[in-house]
Amino acid sequence: MKEIYLDHAATTPLDARVQKAMEPYWSKEFGNPSSLHRKGVAAKKALEESRKNIAGILHCKASEIIFTGGGTEAVNLGIIGFARANAHHGRHIVTMRIEHHAVLHSVDVLRAEGFDVTTVGVSEDGLIDPKEIERVIRPDTILVSVMYANNEIGTIQPIAEIGKVLRRYREKQKQSPHYSLSTIRYPLLFTDACQAAGALELNVEKLGVDMLAVNGSKIYGPKGIGCLYAKSEIKLEPVIVGGGQEKGMRSGTENIPAIVGFAEALEIAADMRVKESERLTKLRDWFIGELLKKIPDVVLNGHPKLRLPNNINISIPGIEGEAAVIYLDAKGIYCSTGSACSSVSLEPSHVILELGRSPDLAQGSLRFTLGRSTTKKDLEYVLKALAEVVKKTRFSKSR
Amino acid sequence: MKEIYLDHAATTPLDARVQKAMEPYWSKEFGNPSSLHRKGVAAKKALEESRKNIAGILHCKASEIIFTGGGTEAVNLGIIGFARANAHHGRHIVTMRIEHHAVLHSVDVLRAEGFDVTTVGVSEDGLIDPKEIERVIRPDTILVSVMYANNEIGTIQPIAEIGKVLRRYREKQKQSPHYSLSTIRYPLLFTDACQAAGALELNVEKLGVDMLAVNGSKIYGPKGIGCLYAKSEIKLEPVIVGGGQEKGMRSGTENIPAIVGFAEALEIAADMRVKESERLTKLRDWFIGELLKKIPDVVLNGHPKLRLPNNINISIPGIEGEAAVIYLDAKGIYCSTGSACSSVSLEPSHVILELGRSPDLAQGSLRFTLGRSTTKKDLEYVLKALAEVVKKTRFSKSR
Repeated sequence: MKEIYLDHAATTPLDARVQKAMEPYWSKEFGNPSSLHRKGVAAKKALEESRKNIAGILHCKASEIIFTGGGTEAVNLGIIGFARANAHHGRHIVTMRIEHHAVLHSVDVLRAEGFDVTTVGVSEDGLIDPKEIERVIRPDTILVSVMYANNEIGTIQPIAEIGKVLRRYREKQKQSPHYSLSTIRYPLLFTDACQAAGALELNVEKLGVDMLAVNGSKIYGPKGIGCLYAKSEIKLEPVIVGGGQEKGMRSGTENIPAIVGFAEALEIAADMRVKESERLTKLRDWFIGELLKKIPDVVLNGHPKLRLPNNINISIPGIEGEAAVIYLDAKGIYCSTGSACSSVSLEPSHVILELGRSPDLAQGSLRFTLGRSTTKKDLEYVLKALAEVVKKTRFSKSR
Repeated sequence: MKEIYLDHAATTPLDARVQKAMEPYWSKEFGNPSSLHRKGVAAKKALEESRKNIAGILHCKASEIIFTGGGTEAVNLGIIGFARANAHHGRHIVTMRIEHHAVLHSVDVLRAEGFDVTTVGVSEDGLIDPKEIERVIRPDTILVSVMYANNEIGTIQPIAEIGKVLRRYREKQKQSPHYSLSTIRYPLLFTDACQAAGALELNVEKLGVDMLAVNGSKIYGPKGIGCLYAKSEIKLEPVIVGGGQEKGMRSGTENIPAIVGFAEALEIAADMRVKESERLTKLRDWFIGELLKKIPDVVLNGHPKLRLPNNINISIPGIEGEAAVIYLDAKGIYCSTGSACSSVSLEPSHVILELGRSPDLAQGSLRFTLGRSTTKKDLEYVLKALAEVVKKTRFSKSR
């Protein structure tokens, strides 16, 4: 049977080039970077070269990259680790209600520790208004956390504009009588870029972010690896403690094969980005156009243009998302309802609800996320199958 | 040049069979277990089968296994996560001074949160006395953490006896007027089995432990993967929060290739254990005998018999450990001074110091950890090289 994988936002297959890059580190250069001998030195070299290459893509210093055991851990470190280490300045944090649970549960942990958290809503397109950030930040705000692109609806947030809002605010603080000579100015900007990494610019200078999290599993890289970019001088409290690796910020023997693979995956993504995004954007827009034409009453979730090139999220009134996923699965089409991480719970997506959609429409949301292997022919097949599903399901309901 | 890797306690090469087991999960069955479609189901199946296989080796229920991003994280979850979730009962923790830094820094975190920690010393052989545990536990002790085997000196601790001490204590509590009907009886026993996993019995029933941490990187498995066994009904607070994977105890997309490889590595280790331990014990004892004969004034660190089959740790008066490692490295022999994790710091090992050795002897400690590829011929070569190193170094010092 034909298999069409359209769930690249859940996870991606490993790129063959990445697998090849990892190969020498399994049983040849398998050393522990902390060892003083040749095997350790070779591992250390692979570690630091990977760090340097990633720093090149992010336009930061190699010393500003902390490797973690995945995207979630990088987010935890950037939010929980940052807040705990900077609580002396203030205990207020700002984030969005449509963030990934890695962010939402990080701020929950902080709330339980006495932090005050303001969660900002979004427009019906899923966009945050930078003015809203300006409105809610206060002298005790230490962190603003805004995801780069949403994992469910693909909406791309105006990170650079939010960065400017924060820089203006920090400048103003200099005139304040309470201005301290600390090298860090608050609030800092953290962005969860895990979903954006494959498709969007990751230049932290242009983005104007102070911290950024990315991982391997969404960019055709290995799973179980990620990193946090944290600007020099930012103090963090580690989430994982032990042998003191990553300058004490993340203990545990470094996962060299995964780190090497992660760096390779990021480089490949950076190389392919412009062309592949163009290709996917065209496919996406054509697919959305056809869906709107061919599926009666279909609703597009998320912004029509400011969205990831590979993301299509729709709601079909009268159709259960889960049922549709299973129908399509039988036809070899693999897609998702909302985010994979919450699909087990069968609760309506918190993201779709935040857009102001009814619980019924949220329940019926379907996400197709294209990838490097996706062709127009694949999508034509999906359109046909989806039309059938809708016809059958609605018909059976009306009887 | 001949290469003799004798640093298996730092990390092991990946077993070819493990690599093969992981292969299908890179780009064929690469799905996210949370996805509802076939790719997700296949990933979920691989996840749960791996969990079941590991549970079989540990003699526990599959539901008692929580996958983590490595050994350090498993230790953090078992100590920090446990203590935070059980602080209502008491805030006293007991551990050993020769534990790995993953444990020592976990209890440091808890100390900063107001927990009271008692650290117990060891004999000059590196052995804890179970009576010492009996002496220090109190009604508010919630956890006793004793490593199964030491990573530097290989000493195997009497875990089962400590388990019995705790069970007796818990039984006595039943007669206490303060006895609660809680299903959990304190104190519980946690053991860091990361270093022991390849060589010793992992049957948690026989060991009498309530929690146990193991990982892949020391047993010819993949890096960046580990697990915590935690007996049913034990409440933990997650260290990593987000999408709610591992029943909320460890969020982040499950690292299926690494999990499958980890389970395979544990199975291979379990299959090989008895024979391979016998072979290594013979090699080890022969090697120690030769060292004591051929290197003047050499001192064996750790217990002569109750030690890991692959561990040899010696101190040579007048010889710097680091210098010897580098000398041997030039001859293609890869060994270590104390633990790899702290070798970067060049501080004398806290473990060797705890045995009552002088800082000079601690500084001069050398660790050889044998592996599946190690032969008697390798060790003969090492003996010759080491004798030369000692002669040259001592000679150059006396000039």
